[in-house]
Amino acid sequence: MKDFQQIIGYQFKKEHLLREALTHSSYTNEGRKRHKNNERLEFLGDSVLSVIVANYLFLQFPDLPEGELTKTRAALVCSRSLAKFAQSIHLGDYLLMGCGEENSGGRERISNLEDAFEALVGAIYLDSGLEQARVFVLKFIPENLDPSKIRVTSDFKTTLQEIIQKNPEEKLTYVLVSESGPDHDKSFEVEVHLNSNIIGTGIGKSKKQAEQAAAQKALELMGYETC
Amino acid sequence: MKDFQQIIGYQFKKEHLLREALTHSSYTNEGRKRHKNNERLEFLGDSVLSVIVANYLFLQFPDLPEGELTKTRAALVCSRSLAKFAQSIHLGDYLLMGCGEENSGGRERISNLEDAFEALVGAIYLDSGLEQARVFVLKFIPENLDPSKIRVTSDFKTTLQEIIQKNPEEKLTYVLVSESGPDHDKSFEVEVHLNSNIIGTGIGKSKKQAEQAAAQKALELMGYETC
Repeated sequence: MKDFQQIIGYQFKKEHLLREALTHSSYTNEGRKRHKNNERLEFLGDSVLSVIVANYLFLQFPDLPEGELTKTRAALVCSRSLAKFAQSIHLGDYLLMGCGEENSGGRERISNLEDAFEALVGAIYLDSGLEQARVFVLKFIPENLDPSKIRVTSDFKTTLQEIIQKNPEEKLTYVLVSESGPDHDKSFEVEVHLNSNIIGTGIGKSKKQAEQAAAQKALELMGYETC
Repeated sequence: MKDFQQIIGYQFKKEHLLREALTHSSYTNEGRKRHKNNERLEFLGDSVLSVIVANYLFLQFPDLPEGELTKTRAALVCSRSLAKFAQSIHLGDYLLMGCGEENSGGRERISNLEDAFEALVGAIYLDSGLEQARVFVLKFIPENLDPSKIRVTSDFKTTLQEIIQKNPEEKLTYVLVSESGPDHDKSFEVEVHLNSNIIGTGIGKSKKQAEQAAAQKALELMGYETC
């Protein structure tokens, strides 16, 4: 707990709030009834996070229309972003969880990381108020955030295609590099090429999945935030 | 503007924020380019409202599970609730809007009232911070709020039926009281009876709509918050 507070740069006055934020429901389900899990703090933290990000974007981009503000906030607080924030502070290592959850990869599960990150924000807010929660959250907002480079989509191939085809001379191709594993558990590796340059590589359980992963990597390389 | 600030019990330091909160987009579209409309403040206010209500529910109901907290917040900040809050402070009367919007009933339109209410919360937050916004918002939360009496549904008939059938001896009937107007613009009035007592009356453009409206009235009479 001490280590973790050093990592996050915040010292709790009420340490039970930190403990609650780090407690996955599987921990309390395994007979530890007197412990609270982090679901209620997650409910609170979700709102706290939202207002902090909204306020930041509102002031930072005074001319951005409401629709763009909404899209940018959605990207900043989507599951994938929150899980990335959580990973950067090694949140998974400090979660309290049941054995079943742990053995099935619970410390790396996106939803657990996302929920615990929100709960942590809620806990800091309860411990010290909005300003301290703001200091904590704003550290995770990328510097030089550019709303015009945000794409909220699950179809990365189409998004990449739309961006590339603005220059008619540019050409995207997907190249299958390898295919391995038994029939019921195959793994594919795909490269996406822009003209003759490799701009992304992706792995997936189908060719399609690997192509999407490669396109997403390419978008990130080009400075786009995807969600 | 002065009247309105008396009604809401809050005096703006920066009156331009109040003006912005009250400005519907149709006003700025009609050639008044230098005025800002309330869409950006609505974006901000939506989050501010959400965190205030979340915080209130979290503290007020320390044993309520996350799912119930989420449902209760959703009901408190749904369009219909926000429009009711807006009506209680006569917000529609103070909106700045274009002639087209005004002539088509814009001052009573639920979406305009909801958006302006959120914008107003955002404006107070920017003007004075979270605590003042909280004082303003909490005045609208019903006293003796009972989360077990909240129903988030658009099917009021089914909800009413489910509540009533817990007592097998009770019986609901819907009675068509009147039908008026020309074929293309009919109006129906329906009563819902519990045994021999009228517990709600509803008007609608079809029998079904009128029945739903009557069921909703009955739920409200029985102390349920519907949304």
